[in-house]
Amino acid sequence: MSDVFDKCSNWKDYRIAKATGLYPYFRSIEASHGATEVEIEGRRVIMVGSNNYLGLSADPRVKEAAIKAVEKFGTTCSGSRLLNGTLALHEELEAKLAKFLNRESALVISTGFQTNLALSSILGRHDIVFTDRQNHASLVDGIRLGFATERKFRHNDMEHLEQLLSAADPDAGKIIVTDGVFSMEGDICNLPRIAELAKQYNARVMTDDAHSMGVLGETGRGVPEYFGLEAETDLTMGTFSKSFASLGGVLAGPFEVINYMRHKARSVIFSASMTPASIAAVLKSLEIIEAEPQRRARLLDIAEKMHNGFRAMGFDTGVSVTPVVPVHIGDQVKCFRFWKALHEAGVFANPVIPPAVEAGHALIRTSFMATHTDAQLDRVLDTFEKIGRRMEVIPETRPTVYEPVKIARPGTGVRSNKASEKWAAGSVGQLADKGGLTLEQLSRMSSREVAGKIFDAVEHLTWRAANLQPADLRKLGGASKRLWEKRGELPGLLLEKGAHFFMRNGQDGTTTTTQAERN
Amino acid sequence: MSDVFDKCSNWKDYRIAKATGLYPYFRSIEASHGATEVEIEGRRVIMVGSNNYLGLSADPRVKEAAIKAVEKFGTTCSGSRLLNGTLALHEELEAKLAKFLNRESALVISTGFQTNLALSSILGRHDIVFTDRQNHASLVDGIRLGFATERKFRHNDMEHLEQLLSAADPDAGKIIVTDGVFSMEGDICNLPRIAELAKQYNARVMTDDAHSMGVLGETGRGVPEYFGLEAETDLTMGTFSKSFASLGGVLAGPFEVINYMRHKARSVIFSASMTPASIAAVLKSLEIIEAEPQRRARLLDIAEKMHNGFRAMGFDTGVSVTPVVPVHIGDQVKCFRFWKALHEAGVFANPVIPPAVEAGHALIRTSFMATHTDAQLDRVLDTFEKIGRRMEVIPETRPTVYEPVKIARPGTGVRSNKASEKWAAGSVGQLADKGGLTLEQLSRMSSREVAGKIFDAVEHLTWRAANLQPADLRKLGGASKRLWEKRGELPGLLLEKGAHFFMRNGQDGTTTTTQAERN
Repeated sequence: MSDVFDKCSNWKDYRIAKATGLYPYFRSIEASHGATEVEIEGRRVIMVGSNNYLGLSADPRVKEAAIKAVEKFGTTCSGSRLLNGTLALHEELEAKLAKFLNRESALVISTGFQTNLALSSILGRHDIVFTDRQNHASLVDGIRLGFATERKFRHNDMEHLEQLLSAADPDAGKIIVTDGVFSMEGDICNLPRIAELAKQYNARVMTDDAHSMGVLGETGRGVPEYFGLEAETDLTMGTFSKSFASLGGVLAGPFEVINYMRHKARSVIFSASMTPASIAAVLKSLEIIEAEPQRRARLLDIAEKMHNGFRAMGFDTGVSVTPVVPVHIGDQVKCFRFWKALHEAGVFANPVIPPAVEAGHALIRTSFMATHTDAQLDRVLDTFEKIGRRMEVIPETRPTVYEPVKIARPGTGVRSNKASEKWAAGSVGQLADKGGLTLEQLSRMSSREVAGKIFDAVEHLTWRAANLQPADLRKLGGASKRLWEKRGELPGLLLEKGAHFFMRNGQDGTTTTTQAERN
Repeated sequence: MSDVFDKCSNWKDYRIAKATGLYPYFRSIEASHGATEVEIEGRRVIMVGSNNYLGLSADPRVKEAAIKAVEKFGTTCSGSRLLNGTLALHEELEAKLAKFLNRESALVISTGFQTNLALSSILGRHDIVFTDRQNHASLVDGIRLGFATERKFRHNDMEHLEQLLSAADPDAGKIIVTDGVFSMEGDICNLPRIAELAKQYNARVMTDDAHSMGVLGETGRGVPEYFGLEAETDLTMGTFSKSFASLGGVLAGPFEVINYMRHKARSVIFSASMTPASIAAVLKSLEIIEAEPQRRARLLDIAEKMHNGFRAMGFDTGVSVTPVVPVHIGDQVKCFRFWKALHEAGVFANPVIPPAVEAGHALIRTSFMATHTDAQLDRVLDTFEKIGRRMEVIPETRPTVYEPVKIARPGTGVRSNKASEKWAAGSVGQLADKGGLTLEQLSRMSSREVAGKIFDAVEHLTWRAANLQPADLRKLGGASKRLWEKRGELPGLLLEKGAHFFMRNGQDGTTTTTQAERN
């Protein structure tokens, strides 16, 4: 005779972690000093484990707005948006977010988690949803709560996505759902290729821009703006607990779709609405995000500094090109030990272990705020270097060369990663060999189409980069060399050392024609 | 070729409701006057459509606590409880809630909705979950996200629950999940019988005390305390957007179970934590709930006044015995028209239509606050009477008699409903006839056992009361009369006009021996 509670009493991980002193969770913060430093167990530590990207949670203007809302409207709305929990403030926020995000309509929901659950309301029995295997848990659950058929594609694997799309019933309603920036490893979805495939297979596209809204794109609208593909992205969502210094989320898109979700999504109509303080904090943060682009610029400078700072020491920051900077450790226990050493040395970062990442790919996730000082960042780097050497994650002496990371700057959609020119060119050649595309065909494609294909190939290879052997490189064959030689003839395409490619965004972000530029 | 968005563009209900002027949702509140009155479209209306039961959302002490937390900790925690979003404040709140609720452990979650989703983490593939068909949407979704087999029992139908339990694999882990107070109709679950069945069939019990925590039970611990059955209720949950003037929820129970959920529930570990302001509001509200029992007493007085005020006019408030006072209208369009007339006359209440209630049972849901004044309440009653007569929901003249509702008072577990003495006694007799229980056997049972059986029968009949015909009453036969005659001999049992029965709670609420008292 078993008991529902048996699994709880039999669960050993917690006791083992506690007993070995390697328990890294639920660390209790006693005080905050401008959000970049916090007190834990009476000790002041540098916070590089937060999603407070723009540092607005401690901004006096944001605090003041929240306080005024409490004074005027109290501490709660005591009910759902549908019935008694809609304040004029909610509507003001929705109107301003719709405008900011360049969408017909926006819907504000009490948590980011529930914002993704709301997706379930449009997933009917005859629909098919195509979802990246590494999408956020709340998207996974939102899809499970819907009634559509689910088709998972391998992380950012566009060939796999295309296979699934081409195998699906052509008459079914389709939607491709992807994180914009993947939260644990900081890499970006291949939206250019997704947009192409969506068009080809008549699918809708939704991006989860939790980690990119306020951070990426010329005006901070997130990954769709970053790629100049807002018109191609039907629905976008963001969360307020990151750049917006609050709690909640937003779904934005066509009026009819948002209005339907407003009335049908269970996580909207059966849940109490955002508190007055939380709405007011988002309203003020949005105002600051629009007025102070220098925050985004500073954040991206910091991201670049940290990526390259870690890399110069010999650390591997993976495929990230965002302020989410994962420091790869590998072994899970070593990762916990690394975390503990950081904790003791006064650096607050987070261990990420399987199943959040693949087995053998445990990492320390760091993430940064526009308000971190260089002195704080240097202390963090210094601490990582000492521990990294002691624990033999990095060599005793710094490597002579490393693959630098170049971070996107507002105004350009820069995509950069550590794949070498060979991999990039080679993989386009590979596509040509496999898919019947010749170099001549490639040269007739629009720059965006080519960029999408390169992105796809680079992304795919980058994922395997850690394990890529010289033999693999050789297998790429002559195509890479030929493409590299002909790169000047391909319109709108720049291949350069490090496999960067550039797409400049147009003015309004929705009708952009991608153009390439030489750096 | 179809489109995921087709269902949105084809959706007509919204356009029809808007076109006919009968659209009752998302009414925008522009200002609040102590929460009991709000401004909508520039007009001041009385709010009787909120779950702010104790009126604490506008309490200056609660506001002050929220403001101080914003000043000290900012407007957000910028991350999940698991990683960087745990403040000492969260832990203080969990410790105080565990103590208040008389449980080993408590876990605070960002919304009440996500609190119920967390249930999914303990529902394994070999478990069976027995769930009331009218449970809250968030429990329904929490169960869908789990992996257990789901068995739905008819609303508060204990015979059906027993059928399902007895038909289930005896070796499976089992849990019975029920709302404490059902949110739309204000009735209470049959926890005495559920506890008996759980013991008999080796099942765990969880109650959703969203609408009873802070409201029912001697100290406001909710439905388990109300019945003196806290030891028999393994898990309890509550939400903060009702009596606690905030946003969020709590799960409380044995340490091992709560600790497991803390680490495994996706709605906990993948969602940003409660904001500092929201935690501080709950902490202060809890202090007030414990220090000011007069708020609960006033609320229950108000509930009784309103139930009986409506009933004296000829309205039907159904089976509710709580401050959720449903006014039954029947037809859906009539319900919308009634709602609109209320709205225009300055009363904010909510229409509840199928599928939230059964077809033909549309109702206006009113709910009350301890801070409503008698003058406000009288204006509400007066408005309902005028509209009710005009729309022929009630007769032109008040009925000469009506079934009064007696509301539970702190210190006694009073269960009252409109079933007559005949129905109550008769239905125990019915149980005796059917189940082989003789009056002699009944007289040897503990008072709680008898109370449970009566409750079951009364509840069952009450649900059918609206349609009960004299012929039905006759069918109950002689047993009722005999039981009524022997009522003095049954220990711990009081049957009186209106089929009230009383169970006095013991001192500590967990080891209570139920005793009866004459009123």
